[in-house]
Amino acid sequence: MSTKHTAKCECSQLQRHRCKFQPVLPAILQKGPAFVKPKFGKATKSVADQAAVKRIFPNTYGLPEITFVKGANSAVAKKAVRVGVVLSGGQAPGGHNVIGGLLDGLKKANPKNKLFGFLGGPSGIVENKWVEITPALMKDYRNTGGFDLIQSGRTKIETDEQLKAAKDNLIANKMDALVVVGGDDSNTNACVIAEYLKQQGVDISVIGVPKTIDGDLKNKQIETSFGFDTATKIYAELVGNICRDVNSARKYWHFIRLMGRSASHITLEVAFKTHPNAVLIGEEVLAKKMTLGQIVDNLAQLIAKRAKAGKNYGVVLVPEGLIEFIPEMKELISALNDSLADNEAELSKMNTVAEKKAFILSKLPAKLADLMRSLPEGIASQLMLDRDPHGNVQVSLIETEKLLVEMIRTKLAEMKKAGKYNGKFAAITHFFGYEGRCGVPSTFDANYTYALGYNAAVLALNKCSGYLSSVRKLTKKAQDWECGGIPLTMMMNIERRKGKEKPVIKKALVELKGEPFKHLAKNRDLWAVEDLYVFPGPIQYFGPAEITDMTTYTLLLEQGKKVK
Amino acid sequence: MSTKHTAKCECSQLQRHRCKFQPVLPAILQKGPAFVKPKFGKATKSVADQAAVKRIFPNTYGLPEITFVKGANSAVAKKAVRVGVVLSGGQAPGGHNVIGGLLDGLKKANPKNKLFGFLGGPSGIVENKWVEITPALMKDYRNTGGFDLIQSGRTKIETDEQLKAAKDNLIANKMDALVVVGGDDSNTNACVIAEYLKQQGVDISVIGVPKTIDGDLKNKQIETSFGFDTATKIYAELVGNICRDVNSARKYWHFIRLMGRSASHITLEVAFKTHPNAVLIGEEVLAKKMTLGQIVDNLAQLIAKRAKAGKNYGVVLVPEGLIEFIPEMKELISALNDSLADNEAELSKMNTVAEKKAFILSKLPAKLADLMRSLPEGIASQLMLDRDPHGNVQVSLIETEKLLVEMIRTKLAEMKKAGKYNGKFAAITHFFGYEGRCGVPSTFDANYTYALGYNAAVLALNKCSGYLSSVRKLTKKAQDWECGGIPLTMMMNIERRKGKEKPVIKKALVELKGEPFKHLAKNRDLWAVEDLYVFPGPIQYFGPAEITDMTTYTLLLEQGKKVK
Repeated sequence: MSTKHTAKCECSQLQRHRCKFQPVLPAILQKGPAFVKPKFGKATKSVADQAAVKRIFPNTYGLPEITFVKGANSAVAKKAVRVGVVLSGGQAPGGHNVIGGLLDGLKKANPKNKLFGFLGGPSGIVENKWVEITPALMKDYRNTGGFDLIQSGRTKIETDEQLKAAKDNLIANKMDALVVVGGDDSNTNACVIAEYLKQQGVDISVIGVPKTIDGDLKNKQIETSFGFDTATKIYAELVGNICRDVNSARKYWHFIRLMGRSASHITLEVAFKTHPNAVLIGEEVLAKKMTLGQIVDNLAQLIAKRAKAGKNYGVVLVPEGLIEFIPEMKELISALNDSLADNEAELSKMNTVAEKKAFILSKLPAKLADLMRSLPEGIASQLMLDRDPHGNVQVSLIETEKLLVEMIRTKLAEMKKAGKYNGKFAAITHFFGYEGRCGVPSTFDANYTYALGYNAAVLALNKCSGYLSSVRKLTKKAQDWECGGIPLTMMMNIERRKGKEKPVIKKALVELKGEPFKHLAKNRDLWAVEDLYVFPGPIQYFGPAEITDMTTYTLLLEQGKKVK
Repeated sequence: MSTKHTAKCECSQLQRHRCKFQPVLPAILQKGPAFVKPKFGKATKSVADQAAVKRIFPNTYGLPEITFVKGANSAVAKKAVRVGVVLSGGQAPGGHNVIGGLLDGLKKANPKNKLFGFLGGPSGIVENKWVEITPALMKDYRNTGGFDLIQSGRTKIETDEQLKAAKDNLIANKMDALVVVGGDDSNTNACVIAEYLKQQGVDISVIGVPKTIDGDLKNKQIETSFGFDTATKIYAELVGNICRDVNSARKYWHFIRLMGRSASHITLEVAFKTHPNAVLIGEEVLAKKMTLGQIVDNLAQLIAKRAKAGKNYGVVLVPEGLIEFIPEMKELISALNDSLADNEAELSKMNTVAEKKAFILSKLPAKLADLMRSLPEGIASQLMLDRDPHGNVQVSLIETEKLLVEMIRTKLAEMKKAGKYNGKFAAITHFFGYEGRCGVPSTFDANYTYALGYNAAVLALNKCSGYLSSVRKLTKKAQDWECGGIPLTMMMNIERRKGKEKPVIKKALVELKGEPFKHLAKNRDLWAVEDLYVFPGPIQYFGPAEITDMTTYTLLLEQGKKVK
C-alpha cells in the first residue's frame, strides 16, 4: 500500500543551502556501480560463540568480506531493480543522506531502478506502508537532519508472523533488496531477515547501514557509526558554551549528563573537544568496581581542591548510563526488582512512602540497605515507585546529574564540619540528548552517510545479502575512503537478553586500553585543576576545511593519529 | 592595583578563525573619532515620573540626544586619555567585542590612549582591581563569547562608601571615563555613578552599553540589547533540532523552558524561528489574567485535538518567568511568604511536610488554598521548603515545564475518563539558558558590539557623561548604521523595589499591541495543528550573507519589515 507523502516544511535559509550541497563520493564509487567490482576476501567467523552463531545463521554465516575495486560490471545495470529502505531505532544525523546516496547509486546504475521507503520503521514492512522515494521528493531532504522523510520505529521483525508478513510484502512489491539503517539491534534484526529469506529460498538481499549517535556500533571494519560525529559536535558546542560561562561567572559547578546509555563514547569525545574538569566514564567505573560513594568522594575532593585555589566552579561530564555501570547500584536495582515483585501484595496495603521504604529496607541485604539509605530521598522514592510496565525500576528516569549533586552537597557539608572544605558549592544541572539526534549533519556525516547509502546500492546491485555497508579509512579525505561490505554475522556473539540466549552484534564499549581512553587518562589531571577549557562553537558548513571537515578525536586516536 | 592577566586558553579552530574576523564598522565611524562630531538634539525628558527622576539626577537629567555626524574634531585626539571598562551582570555574547571596539576607537584617536578593564564586575572598581587591555591581550578575545577576559559581577555601586571608593579609585588611576556594559539595572547604576561624580565635581564621564540576552532593555532609540541575537539563534538551533526529532519520532511532547524571567522576548523570537505547536507568553497571561488551571486546560485541549488527528506529539515553549506572570500564582507566593514568616515558630515545631502543608493550607484564603492543593505534590513542597536567605519562596527554582507536564497529565487522565481524550501523552522537558549566554557572537552581534564599543569611545572622547551608547537602524547593513548617545535618564521611571521608590530604566516587556506579538497571534493557530516546524540549524560565520547576516524577526517586525 503506497501512502501519499504529505511532508510540509518551511525551509530555513541554512536548510535551503544545504539541500544543494553535493557530498564528496569516494573515488571508487564516482563512476557508478557499473564500474565497480566486489573483491571477496576469505570466509569470516563471528567474533565469539562461532558454533552457536553458525547454527542460528546457517545461510549467512561465514560470508567473505567484500572490498570494492575498479572494474567493468555492466551486469548490475541491465535489469531494473526495486529496493526498499527502512530507518530503524533512534534518529541520527545523516539518515536522509543514506537514502539520498542509495537513490543516486540506484539511478546511476539504471534510471529505471526504483527506491521505496517503508514508513515508520520496520513495522512499515510488516504493515506494507511505503512511499516511493523519487528524486523530486528527495530534493528537500538532502543533507538535512531528522528521519522525517519516512520516520523510524523500534519494532523488531522477529516472530514467525512478522517474518512471513515481511517476506510476503517484499515479494508482493517485487523488491530485489531491502536496506536496513539502524544500530546494533536493528542490524542484528537485518541479519535475521536476511537469513530467513535465504532459508525460504527468496532471492531478496538484505543490507545493513551502521547508525547510532552513541558510537557503540563499531569494530575494525566499521570505523564509526553515522551520527556520532554530528551529535558530539552539537553537545560539544553546548558544553563549550557552558565552560566559557563557568570561566566568566566563576561561581557555579555545572553537572552535564550526556546521552549514551550502554557506552560512554559520547562523553569521552565531548571531553576531548572541551576539556572539562571531571569526566566520568562508565566503563572505568565498572572495571574498577567503583561504588557510588567513591565517585561522590572523588568529586567532592576535586571540588575541595579547586576551592582551595579559589575556584568554586567547574564542569563535570556524566554519561547517561553511569548508574548501570556501578556494580553495587546494579545489584541494588536487581534486588529491588525482585523484592518489589515478591512483596507486591503486602506493599499494596501500605499507604505511605515511608512505610514502604522501611519495609523494603528490611528485606534488602544489609549492604544494599545501607546504599539505599545513602541515596537522596527523592531518588530512593523514585526507585521504589516509578516502575515500567514489566514492574521494573526505571533506571533511565534517574537524573544521575542531580543525584550526584545532592550527594556531593551532603558530603561537602560533612567535610566543612571537619574543617576539610571551605568553599561555596552552587550547582546547575543539564541533560543533553534529544538536542543532538536530529541536527543538520556535519560535512563528515553528510559525506559518510551519502557514501554508505551509495555503497549499499552497489552491494544490493551485486546481490550481496547479510552484509553491512562499510566505508573505511575515514580519517583520510572523503575521495580516498575505501568501500565494501562486512558480513553481519562476523560481528555477532551470543548474549543473554530477557532471560534468553540471543545472537547479537557485540556492542563496542570504551576500551580502557584503547588510545581514546588513554588520552583522557593522560590529560584529565591537568584539566581538573587548570582551566584549559576549549570552546568549539557550532558546526560550520561553509568556510575553511580545517573547521568544516574536522572529524572526531575518537577516530583520530583509534587510527593512531596524533592529537593535541 | 593592577592584576596580572593569567588567562590560558586552548583555542578551537573556529575561535582561531573568528579572532581574525574584522567587524564592519558603521561608515560614520570608519575614519576614526577625529572625524566625527556630536550633533545635539533637544533636551530630553524621562519616560515617566519626570519630576522625581529630575530630583534624583539634577546633573544628568534632561541632556540632549546625540547623533554623530561627519566633521573634523581633532580636539579629541590631542590629549592622551585613560578609560576604564567594566562588565556587569549576566554574560551575553559580544561583551569582548565591546571592549575590542572601545580599544580600537581609543587607539585610533591617539595611540597613547589607554584602556583598563576592571575585574569581576563593578566590585573591581570599588576594590581597585584591574588589568590594562593592550592590543596583544585583546587579540585572542576578539569575536569570542564569554566575559572571561575580565569577568563580570553583580555588585551595585550604591552606598556612600561604595560610591566614594569608586570615585577615589577612578581618580587615583587618573581615569577620564568609565564604560559600564550591562542590563537595565547596571545602566541605572551607571547613571547613579555619573550623577555622583558630577555632583562631586569630578570630571570623569560615565557611559553605558546596552547588554542582555533577555532583550528587555530597548526602546525607540536603543533598538536591541546585544546578545539577544546570538542567544536566540542558539536556543532556536536546539528547539529546531527537537522539532525535527518530534517530527521524526512522532511520539513525544517536548516542553521547553527558555531563559528570560522578566520578559518573554526570547520565547517569542525562538517561536518565530521554529514554529512550535504552542507558545506561552508571560505578558499575555498577565494581561488576560489567566489562571494556572486555564493554561493547563488550553494545553490539554490542544493535545487532545492533535491526538484526534493521530498526532501524539508536539513542542511547547515556556518562558522562564511564566509563574510570576500568573496573577493567582503571584498572590499565592506572596501569601506564602507572609504566612511562612508569621508562623515560623509554630512551623518549626512540626516534623513532617504533610503537617506543615495542612497547617499552611488552613491559614491561606480559600481560593489560594485550592490553588495550592491543585499543584503537584513536589512543587507544593518546594514552595514551602526551598526559601532564599530572606525567607522568600524561591520562584526561580520552580521547574515550570515539569509543573505543566504533571498538571496536564492529571487533566488528560480526567478527560480520558470522560471520553474526551483518547491519545498517548509521553513528555520530555528541557531548560535552555546557560547554553546561550556565552556562545560565539553571531556576525550581527559581533558587528553590533564592536560598533557599540567604538561608539562608546567616541562618546568618552567627547566627554559625554550619563549616556548610553546607541547604534541604530539595525535592520540595515552594518555600514549604514547610525551612531550616537541617548541620555540614561531619558529611559527612567520610578518603581517600587524592595519596598523603596527607586529610579530605574524601564524594562521593555512584550507589547501585546506590538508587531512581534501580533505576528505570533496571527500564526499560532496554524502552527498548533499543522506541523510547520522550521529547523534553523547552528549559527554560521562563513558562507552566504543571507545565512550569516540574518538578524532577529523581532527587530524586523518592530521596524515594520515584512517577514514570512
